[in-house]
Amino acid sequence: MGYQKPSGTQDFLPAKTAMWQYVESKARDLCRRYRYQEIRTPIFEGTELFKRGVGETTDIVEKEMYTFLDRHTPPNSLTLRPEGTAGVVRAYVENKLYGEPDIAKLYYSGPMFRYERAQAGRYRQFHQFGVEAIGSTDPALDAEVIALGYAFYRELGLTGVSVDLNSVGTPSVRAEFREKLLAFLRPIKETLCGDCQARMERNPLRVLDCKVDQDKFADAPSILDCLDEECETHFARVRECLDEMDIPYNINPRLVRGLDYYTHTAFEYKAQGIGAIDTIGGGGRYNGLVEAIGGEDRPGVGFGIGLERTLLLLDSQGVKPELNNGADVYLVALGERAEKALPALVQRLRNAGVSAERDYLARKTKAQFKAAERSGAKFAAVLGDDELDRGEISLRPITGGEQQAVKLELLAQTIQTLISTPEKGNEIS
Amino acid sequence: MGYQKPSGTQDFLPAKTAMWQYVESKARDLCRRYRYQEIRTPIFEGTELFKRGVGETTDIVEKEMYTFLDRHTPPNSLTLRPEGTAGVVRAYVENKLYGEPDIAKLYYSGPMFRYERAQAGRYRQFHQFGVEAIGSTDPALDAEVIALGYAFYRELGLTGVSVDLNSVGTPSVRAEFREKLLAFLRPIKETLCGDCQARMERNPLRVLDCKVDQDKFADAPSILDCLDEECETHFARVRECLDEMDIPYNINPRLVRGLDYYTHTAFEYKAQGIGAIDTIGGGGRYNGLVEAIGGEDRPGVGFGIGLERTLLLLDSQGVKPELNNGADVYLVALGERAEKALPALVQRLRNAGVSAERDYLARKTKAQFKAAERSGAKFAAVLGDDELDRGEISLRPITGGEQQAVKLELLAQTIQTLISTPEKGNEIS
Repeated sequence: MGYQKPSGTQDFLPAKTAMWQYVESKARDLCRRYRYQEIRTPIFEGTELFKRGVGETTDIVEKEMYTFLDRHTPPNSLTLRPEGTAGVVRAYVENKLYGEPDIAKLYYSGPMFRYERAQAGRYRQFHQFGVEAIGSTDPALDAEVIALGYAFYRELGLTGVSVDLNSVGTPSVRAEFREKLLAFLRPIKETLCGDCQARMERNPLRVLDCKVDQDKFADAPSILDCLDEECETHFARVRECLDEMDIPYNINPRLVRGLDYYTHTAFEYKAQGIGAIDTIGGGGRYNGLVEAIGGEDRPGVGFGIGLERTLLLLDSQGVKPELNNGADVYLVALGERAEKALPALVQRLRNAGVSAERDYLARKTKAQFKAAERSGAKFAAVLGDDELDRGEISLRPITGGEQQAVKLELLAQTIQTLISTPEKGNEIS
Repeated sequence: MGYQKPSGTQDFLPAKTAMWQYVESKARDLCRRYRYQEIRTPIFEGTELFKRGVGETTDIVEKEMYTFLDRHTPPNSLTLRPEGTAGVVRAYVENKLYGEPDIAKLYYSGPMFRYERAQAGRYRQFHQFGVEAIGSTDPALDAEVIALGYAFYRELGLTGVSVDLNSVGTPSVRAEFREKLLAFLRPIKETLCGDCQARMERNPLRVLDCKVDQDKFADAPSILDCLDEECETHFARVRECLDEMDIPYNINPRLVRGLDYYTHTAFEYKAQGIGAIDTIGGGGRYNGLVEAIGGEDRPGVGFGIGLERTLLLLDSQGVKPELNNGADVYLVALGERAEKALPALVQRLRNAGVSAERDYLARKTKAQFKAAERSGAKFAAVLGDDELDRGEISLRPITGGEQQAVKLELLAQTIQTLISTPEKGNEIS
């Protein structure tokens, strides 16, 4: 009889949403400082966009998309967004943001959808924070994007987060490297694992990522030896900027990002703490993507950061921000007349900006005090019929301490003063 | 070649998202004061949930849902949520929140999906802010919910928003009223519009809502004449609380909310300003829903508010909050060495909490100043090679005014001081 959430999805209850709000507000504040502005694109897009923008032969497009037909005649094929970049770039093009005099520095935060095998830390609806900076080839912009993601983890209080950095060159550089790599791989093909053999012809760069065959690749060629002068110069300046900005990084020539339009910079954020060292976010430069999606030729760079993994990491590292979610005051009514007067009194407090709670279960006084404590309220305000006649209420810190009689019309103000000067909070006098 | 957003969806670009953030932060702050905590449920649910929770015979379920099969064997039928209550109640039940000693006061804000005819102000992906208070029959809680929604509109600065209020009684009261109403309608059936005739047997209460036939219903029976004592008492106390809380309302006995488990209080927020007077939000008490969704029998009350309509109304009433989205400072480099030094300098400012921007298009000095103005920055900071040698930078208000030389290591602090004491901002000395 009971209904359940779909497999691979999550309910975030209040204790959890408080953490999400904290993480999101950190992302928002960083974007304010780094000057990235929010963009919101639809939850679903035409399916073709992702085939083009993510890649026909990727796992995502081949196996993981939630694709469906709408009720239009003839029906349109729609897909729940499996990642954030394609939609943002589509919006950039469709809304002709390339006509603006300045580059577009955009961020997004929200749900993405992939039909993956359900496993710990992997969800079919997951959430990403990402940025896209479109319109400049300046390597200092690559460094800015990397710095923003790094600051996100650091300012949340996470430790042990590192940056892996690589240059994947231009498509022509990659074509050359591909040949060299295949020349190295073909003679050892039979010794490789099934996945590697399958990937070899389709995407040999990904083969170097394989955890099983890692020891066989010690002498594999490096893409960094294939970079042309333009790539070298760009990569050198990215590293220089990161050095000057005090962002530590590891050069990892095996790091590739799946897609064809990735150019130059590729990077990943790695963390210890969720079992093995794992990727918790990543991005890179994509100078070919805007044009591939039908826009004018504009360079871009961005990252996507998995928020589930970020929260998992906060949890595993025991990082607990002080989230102040308790009410300012819990009102307790003693007697029928006092109870009748509560709605107006609570409303007056809330209108004045005070966070106020009361009982809605007709509980006895003692149970109301218990509820007040459970709620994390800072103060209890007790209204009896006598006090009501005098136009007063008794206010006292929830943790105990002296109570004082406060005129009803001064209650909001008194609470606000006590809360903003916490030393007074424990000793009303 | 270009890709387009799906029909009925929207891209929210930065100028627009700033308004959305403003509206959402108002909702968040009100929920803090009224003690509603955020819950986030999945974007899609099993299709059966909405058939049960919204109603098999509603327009939503019959015609408007985005329903699709996933890749599971056998496939699951999933549906993008067309409204917020069913998912929240499902989560309440599945997570056994009824086991908590206190009532659940929850809010949500996010995208909903209905395949409707595209028209102005109607979107297939739209956004709602809603609250659900589950676990109490106290009529003061109905009033609290109504007050929260009313405060949302009022504190955003909207005028002309009113509350329509009704009691739809209990199912047995409604059954009795239904018979009386049908007795009134049947003799005039042939004179009614097609919609009304079609609705008459299925949901005669909705017929009274019809705009076309309004003048024929002057003598129609009123549900308020059918209320039993329990319904009367509840409704009287809701009105009394609203009176005491200074929330104005109009009794509207024709107001019905579509679903079967609605009980007692039904309300809608109406506004002038988007063409005719129109409903911009609404809700009511649903004492039968939790049990219908498989939980223990718990009463609930809530509302859903359309955010697109709220923003439309803000726009049509010319309400423009002062959104401070400009950078604190725009850094301009004169000369190659200064340009090389920018990344570290910008990073240092951002690390200190300053919102800092710079040029990434290798623009000439004059164009950089223009970009600084366009960006809404409060200050321009100009770094030349000479200043760099002295470890200084020239800071000046973007609106003109005197400039001063500031030590690089004091730049963040100086900017923060100037911004927090705006009278100094225009006359650095």
